[in-house]
Amino acid sequence: MSKDKLTESSLGIVETQYFTFAQAPNEMVLKSGIKLGPITIAYETYGTLNADKSNAILIFHALTGDAHAAGFHKDAKKPGWWNGMIGPGKSFDTDKYFFISSNCLGSCKGSTGPASINPATGKPYGLSFPVITIEDMVIAQRELIKHLGISKLLSVAGGSMGGLQALQWAIMYPQMIKSVIAVATNHRHTAQQIALHEVCRQAIMSDPDWLGGDYYGKTLPARGMALSRMIGHITYMSEKSMDEKFGRKLIGKEKVGYDFSTDFEVENYLKYRGDSFVQRFDANSYLYLTKALDYFDLAEDKDLTTVFKNTTSNFLVIAFTSDWLYPAYQAKEFVKALKLGGLDVSYVEINTNYGHDAFLVEIESQSHLVKHFLARMEKESDRDFDI
Amino acid sequence: MSKDKLTESSLGIVETQYFTFAQAPNEMVLKSGIKLGPITIAYETYGTLNADKSNAILIFHALTGDAHAAGFHKDAKKPGWWNGMIGPGKSFDTDKYFFISSNCLGSCKGSTGPASINPATGKPYGLSFPVITIEDMVIAQRELIKHLGISKLLSVAGGSMGGLQALQWAIMYPQMIKSVIAVATNHRHTAQQIALHEVCRQAIMSDPDWLGGDYYGKTLPARGMALSRMIGHITYMSEKSMDEKFGRKLIGKEKVGYDFSTDFEVENYLKYRGDSFVQRFDANSYLYLTKALDYFDLAEDKDLTTVFKNTTSNFLVIAFTSDWLYPAYQAKEFVKALKLGGLDVSYVEINTNYGHDAFLVEIESQSHLVKHFLARMEKESDRDFDI
Repeated sequence: MSKDKLTESSLGIVETQYFTFAQAPNEMVLKSGIKLGPITIAYETYGTLNADKSNAILIFHALTGDAHAAGFHKDAKKPGWWNGMIGPGKSFDTDKYFFISSNCLGSCKGSTGPASINPATGKPYGLSFPVITIEDMVIAQRELIKHLGISKLLSVAGGSMGGLQALQWAIMYPQMIKSVIAVATNHRHTAQQIALHEVCRQAIMSDPDWLGGDYYGKTLPARGMALSRMIGHITYMSEKSMDEKFGRKLIGKEKVGYDFSTDFEVENYLKYRGDSFVQRFDANSYLYLTKALDYFDLAEDKDLTTVFKNTTSNFLVIAFTSDWLYPAYQAKEFVKALKLGGLDVSYVEINTNYGHDAFLVEIESQSHLVKHFLARMEKESDRDFDI
Repeated sequence: MSKDKLTESSLGIVETQYFTFAQAPNEMVLKSGIKLGPITIAYETYGTLNADKSNAILIFHALTGDAHAAGFHKDAKKPGWWNGMIGPGKSFDTDKYFFISSNCLGSCKGSTGPASINPATGKPYGLSFPVITIEDMVIAQRELIKHLGISKLLSVAGGSMGGLQALQWAIMYPQMIKSVIAVATNHRHTAQQIALHEVCRQAIMSDPDWLGGDYYGKTLPARGMALSRMIGHITYMSEKSMDEKFGRKLIGKEKVGYDFSTDFEVENYLKYRGDSFVQRFDANSYLYLTKALDYFDLAEDKDLTTVFKNTTSNFLVIAFTSDWLYPAYQAKEFVKALKLGGLDVSYVEINTNYGHDAFLVEIESQSHLVKHFLARMEKESDRDFDI
């Protein structure tokens, strides 16, 4: 390991572990009413659980993320996706806290999902995998937490889809968490978010190689996957950051080609991102996870304040000015509901051009906020707070 | 014709006309250097050209629009796309002015484009059609204006792609126009606009039925076209207008289906829009027109102010607060350059939730602005204005 690499991550080498539950006849009952089991959850841990088991923090990844949030896998060149935040002396300080990062139910990164082998058939589930929800992901995570012998978490934290799970925890298991860190997220998927996902799903399902989801061991639905990812990347960046990064720069040309080959760097970037995604993610998982996101609506037909009525957690909510996928006003909606419910909420809007991607790249500003918030969580008793 | 229909459009029945030029050996030389001819331009006119030919206004449509801007085609149920703006007593008053609305070069609505028959082969051009630019569209429009015997236009007006053409006219033929009305537009396509178009192009070109553009008389590349249109519609609406119109409303269901069929109204709307687009537009034209848009950059490597140095027109520039496809700040950039050049510019930002679609639906506020602007253009002599 090079010096640079060590500086980047003093956590060093980490390994993914696996936990399996819901073995027959004790399958998990999903929100849809369908039973699923056995279920394996891939997870990593960083730091050491203290004697009274009071220093555990559960981390959630975003849509196409995985359990590998920090440190390096053996022989890997890149660290985990939130390595800037998690490590010794970092805001998520592994010298103080014990972190659990799990791959969500339905993903393709070690946890059970549509690409997993259905034990009843010996073949991948494909579209016979049941549609799952954010609630189902949270139930599976709770099984993992119980398995690790932890009864109360100091915090649950995540950005984007991870933020949705953090909010869901606050409602489903309020007695099990002291605090919530929700970044670049909202309390219900809106029409535009659903619309963008539906186009991505249609792109995959329109690909003749998708074969109704039965493409395992055959040609991957590469064109549909690439298109989905291109759309995704446009939504993760802001208009400003795209203009700053690419503008109208041409790719190795003096002038445009007057044909349909690649002219602009931004086109090349999207194609590269699209093509590389095909190899690293499962198309069916993309369908299932986007559907879980679109089904997410904490309040449904109820008043949002009443939904949080059993919640006693402290909240740190972070939004980004240029994030148009999960705009700041959406975070303010649930922040308002939390405050109306008398809860302790710190809301911070970070001024940045990075768009939705900011939760992965605006490390310094988030680090300060998280560090101080967690220090306060450690100090404070479980008393209620007046606003 | 029903009473309602007459109220909607007192212009009554209108007809599309056709003008052909650039016959061999006088083909038009495109910006790419390639020669193209013959070229047919479909157009409509409304109102009467006055004796001194000083009341002519040229109207430009947006990406998938056509020459049919106002009135009704025989037996048609819907009027032209800017019928709310153009007619007797309307802001574009056919009792006062003479309007020319032409379908742009490269389109599939009567003007020469990739779906037209190549006289050299007797077959549709397909991808052998040369890549065209906004400049090329403007040159073709000028041929039409010359053909109609008009040497100076009172105004050129359009929204979105139509606005780009209006700005291009101001630079290429400043002596031929008295004023410019540019709505929801900008002076160069930015990285995000290019990115969105590139995804649409890839969606079409990834469709196996596209056949390298040679699908005429065979199966249409329907899946790719539908995907493109779905992406388009998301960008034409604002996040707010989508939420107001659709929210999380389900389509004829008590609850979500826990499968990959349509759950939400917004999904259904996009699918309908996508599917109906396949029948009404040519996939190759979509490729060519989006490419022309992406190539558009008035300044290129020059200072934008110097680009307008020979321009003497008066400008009315309209932008919409919730338009994220052509954000208002982009209009302000060229408004600034025009003002720095000492030109007379009225810039108005209309507060609306309709997003980019506002140029087609915010008729009342636009009508007032256009009416007063045109009245001023009629009154004023050609003197220069101080800012």
